[in-house]
Amino acid sequence: MNHQWLPDKPGEECGVFGIYAPGRDVARLTYYGLYALQHRGQESAGIAVADGKRLQLHKGMGLVPEVFHHRELSELQGHLAIGHVRYSTTGASSPINAQPLVFRYAGGMLGLAHNGNLTNITELRARLTATGSVFQSSTDSEVIVNLIARYGQTGLVDAVMKCMIDLKGAYSLVILTGDRLLAVRDPHAFRPLCLGILDRGGYVVASESCALDTVGARRLRDVAPGEIVIIDESGLTSLQGMLPRRRAHCIFEYIYFARADSLMDGFNVNRVRREMGRQLAREYPVEADLVIPVPDSGTAAARGYAEESGIPFEEGLMKNRYIGRTFIQPSQDLRDLGVRLKLNPIREVLAGKRVIMVDDSLVRGTTSSKLVAMLRDCGVKEVHLCLSSPPVVHSCYYGIDTSNEEELIAAQMPLDEVRRLINADGLHYLSIEGMLDIFGERRNDFCTACFTGDYPVPVPQPPKAGKFSLE
Amino acid sequence: MNHQWLPDKPGEECGVFGIYAPGRDVARLTYYGLYALQHRGQESAGIAVADGKRLQLHKGMGLVPEVFHHRELSELQGHLAIGHVRYSTTGASSPINAQPLVFRYAGGMLGLAHNGNLTNITELRARLTATGSVFQSSTDSEVIVNLIARYGQTGLVDAVMKCMIDLKGAYSLVILTGDRLLAVRDPHAFRPLCLGILDRGGYVVASESCALDTVGARRLRDVAPGEIVIIDESGLTSLQGMLPRRRAHCIFEYIYFARADSLMDGFNVNRVRREMGRQLAREYPVEADLVIPVPDSGTAAARGYAEESGIPFEEGLMKNRYIGRTFIQPSQDLRDLGVRLKLNPIREVLAGKRVIMVDDSLVRGTTSSKLVAMLRDCGVKEVHLCLSSPPVVHSCYYGIDTSNEEELIAAQMPLDEVRRLINADGLHYLSIEGMLDIFGERRNDFCTACFTGDYPVPVPQPPKAGKFSLE
Amino acid sequence: MNHQWLPDKPGEECGVFGIYAPGRDVARLTYYGLYALQHRGQESAGIAVADGKRLQLHKGMGLVPEVFHHRELSELQGHLAIGHVRYSTTGASSPINAQPLVFRYAGGMLGLAHNGNLTNITELRARLTATGSVFQSSTDSEVIVNLIARYGQTGLVDAVMKCMIDLKGAYSLVILTGDRLLAVRDPHAFRPLCLGILDRGGYVVASESCALDTVGARRLRDVAPGEIVIIDESGLTSLQGMLPRRRAHCIFEYIYFARADSLMDGFNVNRVRREMGRQLAREYPVEADLVIPVPDSGTAAARGYAEESGIPFEEGLMKNRYIGRTFIQPSQDLRDLGVRLKLNPIREVLAGKRVIMVDDSLVRGTTSSKLVAMLRDCGVKEVHLCLSSPPVVHSCYYGIDTSNEEELIAAQMPLDEVRRLINADGLHYLSIEGMLDIFGERRNDFCTACFTGDYPVPVPQPPKAGKFSLE
Amino acid sequence: MNHQWLPDKPGEECGVFGIYAPGRDVARLTYYGLYALQHRGQESAGIAVADGKRLQLHKGMGLVPEVFHHRELSELQGHLAIGHVRYSTTGASSPINAQPLVFRYAGGMLGLAHNGNLTNITELRARLTATGSVFQSSTDSEVIVNLIARYGQTGLVDAVMKCMIDLKGAYSLVILTGDRLLAVRDPHAFRPLCLGILDRGGYVVASESCALDTVGARRLRDVAPGEIVIIDESGLTSLQGMLPRRRAHCIFEYIYFARADSLMDGFNVNRVRREMGRQLAREYPVEADLVIPVPDSGTAAARGYAEESGIPFEEGLMKNRYIGRTFIQPSQDLRDLGVRLKLNPIREVLAGKRVIMVDDSLVRGTTSSKLVAMLRDCGVKEVHLCLSSPPVVHSCYYGIDTSNEEELIAAQMPLDEVRRLINADGLHYLSIEGMLDIFGERRNDFCTACFTGDYPVPVPQPPKAGKFSLE
Repeated sequence: MNHQWLPDKPGEECGVFGIYAPGRDVARLTYYGLYALQHRGQESAGIAVADGKRLQLHKGMGLVPEVFHHRELSELQGHLAIGHVRYSTTGASSPINAQPLVFRYAGGMLGLAHNGNLTNITELRARLTATGSVFQSSTDSEVIVNLIARYGQTGLVDAVMKCMIDLKGAYSLVILTGDRLLAVRDPHAFRPLCLGILDRGGYVVASESCALDTVGARRLRDVAPGEIVIIDESGLTSLQGMLPRRRAHCIFEYIYFARADSLMDGFNVNRVRREMGRQLAREYPVEADLVIPVPDSGTAAARGYAEESGIPFEEGLMKNRYIGRTFIQPSQDLRDLGVRLKLNPIREVLAGKRVIMVDDSLVRGTTSSKLVAMLRDCGVKEVHLCLSSPPVVHSCYYGIDTSNEEELIAAQMPLDEVRRLINADGLHYLSIEGMLDIFGERRNDFCTACFTGDYPVPVPQPPKAGKFSLE
Repeated sequence: MNHQWLPDKPGEECGVFGIYAPGRDVARLTYYGLYALQHRGQESAGIAVADGKRLQLHKGMGLVPEVFHHRELSELQGHLAIGHVRYSTTGASSPINAQPLVFRYAGGMLGLAHNGNLTNITELRARLTATGSVFQSSTDSEVIVNLIARYGQTGLVDAVMKCMIDLKGAYSLVILTGDRLLAVRDPHAFRPLCLGILDRGGYVVASESCALDTVGARRLRDVAPGEIVIIDESGLTSLQGMLPRRRAHCIFEYIYFARADSLMDGFNVNRVRREMGRQLAREYPVEADLVIPVPDSGTAAARGYAEESGIPFEEGLMKNRYIGRTFIQPSQDLRDLGVRLKLNPIREVLAGKRVIMVDDSLVRGTTSSKLVAMLRDCGVKEVHLCLSSPPVVHSCYYGIDTSNEEELIAAQMPLDEVRRLINADGLHYLSIEGMLDIFGERRNDFCTACFTGDYPVPVPQPPKAGKFSLE
Repeated sequence: MNHQWLPDKPGEECGVFGIYAPGRDVARLTYYGLYALQHRGQESAGIAVADGKRLQLHKGMGLVPEVFHHRELSELQGHLAIGHVRYSTTGASSPINAQPLVFRYAGGMLGLAHNGNLTNITELRARLTATGSVFQSSTDSEVIVNLIARYGQTGLVDAVMKCMIDLKGAYSLVILTGDRLLAVRDPHAFRPLCLGILDRGGYVVASESCALDTVGARRLRDVAPGEIVIIDESGLTSLQGMLPRRRAHCIFEYIYFARADSLMDGFNVNRVRREMGRQLAREYPVEADLVIPVPDSGTAAARGYAEESGIPFEEGLMKNRYIGRTFIQPSQDLRDLGVRLKLNPIREVLAGKRVIMVDDSLVRGTTSSKLVAMLRDCGVKEVHLCLSSPPVVHSCYYGIDTSNEEELIAAQMPLDEVRRLINADGLHYLSIEGMLDIFGERRNDFCTACFTGDYPVPVPQPPKAGKFSLE
Repeated sequence: MNHQWLPDKPGEECGVFGIYAPGRDVARLTYYGLYALQHRGQESAGIAVADGKRLQLHKGMGLVPEVFHHRELSELQGHLAIGHVRYSTTGASSPINAQPLVFRYAGGMLGLAHNGNLTNITELRARLTATGSVFQSSTDSEVIVNLIARYGQTGLVDAVMKCMIDLKGAYSLVILTGDRLLAVRDPHAFRPLCLGILDRGGYVVASESCALDTVGARRLRDVAPGEIVIIDESGLTSLQGMLPRRRAHCIFEYIYFARADSLMDGFNVNRVRREMGRQLAREYPVEADLVIPVPDSGTAAARGYAEESGIPFEEGLMKNRYIGRTFIQPSQDLRDLGVRLKLNPIREVLAGKRVIMVDDSLVRGTTSSKLVAMLRDCGVKEVHLCLSSPPVVHSCYYGIDTSNEEELIAAQMPLDEVRRLINADGLHYLSIEGMLDIFGERRNDFCTACFTGDYPVPVPQPPKAGKFSLE
């Protein structure tokens, strides 16, 4: 999915990748792995490679193929590597925040890449600056790096374990030394991280299993809550860095972020989305002529809805696959073209029909109202917007860039007012219970804070402030 | 559809766009129109604008947003414009071939953009050079331009009509003077061209109706075979430039090229593709557990197949939406990753299943055999490849870059050998009759030469030679 | 000299280069040759190469190293080549005007590059369009190309000779076929063109001898007025294409354009400039403490003045060598920084001194007045501006972009008013006689039209109109 | 001077610039200041701006105009700023080393840019990492930043003073807080740093006075050895951060690095160079016909030599001003073209003459031998190479990238062998005494370690190791 062109969706923080594979071109494999994770971040990309002694780094702003070309890849020689993609926001972004970070500390050279958000970052940073640390970026990762350095006198693994006691919130980490690869997941396992093995020898870790598939690795399992996986010359070692806490996998990964072909903490993402659509159809059996998705994010759920309801599925909205970051937005004169440049309704399919339009979620509601208007313009008689997730009413503090609560439409007005605002004939959200039912016995293993306000880890009281002023 | 990353498909020649809209930002509207036609050509893009007197041109290599930025667009001031996108081949490409062409001739300034291929280009060029013309490119368009200039002493429209008598083959043209826009379609109407009207006044012509939709124009009708449409201050005038011949619309537009939301010579592309899938299911009722498409080209037909057969439809192959032109191909070490970087099979969906994989066409067969292998690797028990078009056994001379006949797999060996080569359990092509049945009474309005060898306009005897040596 | 940052100088039209050298990397040698001619044009660059059969072309906007990289050069394989650099104006510029032109005509493939300006271009273009030619650019070169094609039925050399009868004005041409290189100079020999031989075999032609030196060629002689030089497998042949007319070498080449190390029609440029300074000192023996040049254009003349007068030479103005095309001009707030960003006066050298500032010419006078103010600011007591050329009072029609007469300061007011305007204590121009004396017996071999209005070839009556509207 | 294309010269480390000027466009003034300092570093450029509260940073690889465009400059709003240019080496270079550094520490936000080299960097870094610091780059600057942070609990100025006690070696620093600008020079005053005042109010500090001139500031004085200059709302304050030690200004600034128009620690650079040439003529009165410089580095000294000796000065070598970073080096086939692409001898001037060729210094000798060969090729009868500095026989540890001693030709063989190697008829170096005489009473204020081995600050024993492995 190309998240860039639909600003009305939450932003994912990052994707991480790590590989230990002597004899293989690990830089290029990391490049392909990051390609498969590109949907998790389009702002910057980076790869750090180690060859037993030296660490080499290349990173930059832009998509993976914009940052890496033949020359950059061929200069990154070694047998283990980590990589990172970072999300794109509409606001200012800076090269200084690109990852991985590669740094020298008392224990030698280290590389680190991070997905997630810490909730006690301000406190940790203050503690570190008070005793002389400096910070060049606003990233959590630089705080983690400094913490490791403070504990690093007595060995890296010990340092990581001490860090984990300090770090509150979400983190899936890959760490690189000259000859070791570490993968670390927080005790709640908020953000995904999985482990695979290569046929010809070697291991891979990645945010999503689609990246394992892409580089030809066989998925072994997810990294466990609180686990530290250590991969080096002597093979793979697993440590329980911290006692696991109650699992709190981010449920939005299933709803929207993750690629449909990923298998994540036991569930295939595509199947979950399909089931969400089915469940939605059971909860809200609307009478209509057609089910259409908002492509691509609503496609799987729409299919599920259609199957369950028996109402025909149609691709009533055609997406322009070429809309990218450099697309010039319409000027004032052409403002009315709006969302039509990206999604085109097929009049022949839609005219005169009662339509159920399925999307995965509704955050600010700006795009939805334009879509509804566009459908009516095509002669659609009724538009029922069905969402395969509950209303988002709380901010996320664990690694998703939802808006502040003031911007969350469902947090600002009653459901029926939202419906009127977007001018739909019906507006239906999947229930929280219905959503969790899909996961069966594992229904309590997820973080649903953005729907329920039930934060597994305490969060800062004041709503997430504006961007850190550095840069 | 991003055609670039699947070399095993025919290449489209071009897309054209024209607009006459006083008071509107015609350069920007052309930009959006070309965006909607980007699937028809990714090699180069260009826009020429007229303001009553002057013609201004900007063109360059690359995708529309790579060639045009705010600055270029804002410098193109006027009230009428034409635009062009050109296809990308794997071989060398040259800025000299980019369109539109803007030139001065005895009648003043003229701009021209062209979609299609002439069959008597060599003869025409020889005739012109014999009497002193020069050619800077290898394009048909430059030949047309010179012909117009030769006849241009007595008025542009007359010149165009004389040209049409000389031109053999396929052409959909847009022509720009300082204050007039012309749209011309050959008497067989090989390549598409349609006409729309803007709410606030003005007209639009485009290769496909999706471009009309994108700029907010209402589709009026297709440009008729042999018609010359003239748009200027006094409105729209239609001339029959040449008597229409038997219609010979390119059927591959419906099978593969056109965007699914386009309405073309009376048929909605998406619906035709769905019907092709249905028909395929009727012709070849394979026993299987799942129908999966090769995304995105096979998706509509696969859905039709599933609906008709009652076999469940699944998205068993996940496409990486970020693979673009700058993607670094796998090196020798990673050759086995092959098509997996672009399409990832979802093991959970596929394992242990008998699968019908639907694609739109099979040209060289190279990708298909890799896909079949990948599916088997996932534990698929049986793979039946069903194609929603007949075997391509002849080259096209009217504007599609099919390979030479020696490269067309279906032209080189019996069907069963093709099946063995790609290692499928079954291989089924839609019948020619079945394909034409979809169009009902209009079944004879199409060019099917690539399937039948029945060329509506005589073609050069020797197989299409190598690339013209200029550039 | 970097002409870009001193807008107050005339603009040179172009530089041309040609090479015939089997067994050598002719594309790369042309690249180096164009590098040596870069001062003659910074807007665009191009190279066409032939390998006995095929012609290949690459050209683009920008400096030679911006247009050509390893890849472009290595794709241009062959044993003969031509190249071109085009000047940069402040106004709009277009890729369509870049040279060489490569085209197909009745006689096969041809490449052509041109330096100079024709005076009957409008008439020739009209004659050609009247009989069916088309023009995609506003260049003289495209007109020449079409003329050659009209005459080209009976052999290229004959065609070139016929063309020469039609062409009025200035032209130094290099022409490329699959296996022949031609160099042509108009019968007045307005623009320079010289011929060299390579040690390892082969010939080179170039606008200036510095390009011969750069590629390791030995200078043989200048191409003669009206001569056609033909180089091919059988060696070098010379034809008198037209009877020579009175020589009219552009004297501004010696004053400003040419590189100081070039030897041109018998005179070393550096030596001529030095002599112009000496002569100036003889004509205007100002009493002063220092002679300083406006670098780099006035350096040689300033040294001559100092030598002749015995007044010490000092580099009182330091030029910033890094100012290039992308330099951001000062905003309103910083307008007073003016020319200081480019030229910095050395206060220690200048304070309290009476200074003779020597420059090569004064066109619009805008920069000079700023320089004078800057010197006064440094405590200079007197500033005498001495120019090593006579006042420019007429436009050039033979290949130099002087301004229209309305913009030529010396054409608009008496000398003393110019002096007051630029606020100099003295203002002295080299006399026409004094300038010509330097060339001794050959004093009548030069075009001095911009000083005298004595045009060797009749020029269009109305002053040179605004830019041609195409593009 | 464009240092890039003459690899046979030492590399300068950096240039720094700082400005405090409420009401002015400080980002743009810094841009112009860095432009004037571009000769001190072409690898990267950066500007940090403060507006009373916030610090904003932009930096990147390349020349100043490649890193900054209108957009970048206009986003940097504030009233005080610092800037930095970094040198270019032939080896790998990295964005991570670009300056200024902007960081958050216990005292708030801070920006820092540095010119010079510390001699105890390894020891300082080890001390800091031992107590938990991390380093992302190999720069001295990051070490200084961390030291400031360690001492920063009790105020910035105190922290800087404590740092100065730790730092050994050369440093000229500019430091930026939200509302204060600091300039700091080490107690030996190795690297230059001067102070200027703006007419409209405000102060400027810069590595060289040419940058003050360029932004329209009046030079007040040099920053004194060990001085801390503090500029803020209340004006300028000066503190003696450390007691001054014996002055040890880098004498190579005068010989080669600095721009000729700079006034540095009391001496005009151009005048010093001229005097070095004069002194050289007195020490080595060679009999010859011409004095020619190696442009541009040898021009001033050559002029001095000519004046003193009475032998005529000629520009016998013409430099191509367009050779830049992207210039494609000659391939094997063209290796013999060598230095000729950059410097072209004027045969008319040189043939048959006995020539004194003056350059500023001889480091590895590779270019000189090519120049000598080229001159002989032109028919020069004798070539005497005269160098306006003594033989470089020791490495620099204070901020100049001389080669290791093994690469210094004068350190590897007797003078006469060097002469034979470069095939000159004579080879003369300015004597150390002769060089120092120029500075009169201040003869002991300079660091001459590269000539004498007399290091003012102890240097690490092992010869400067290879590049730091980070990046």
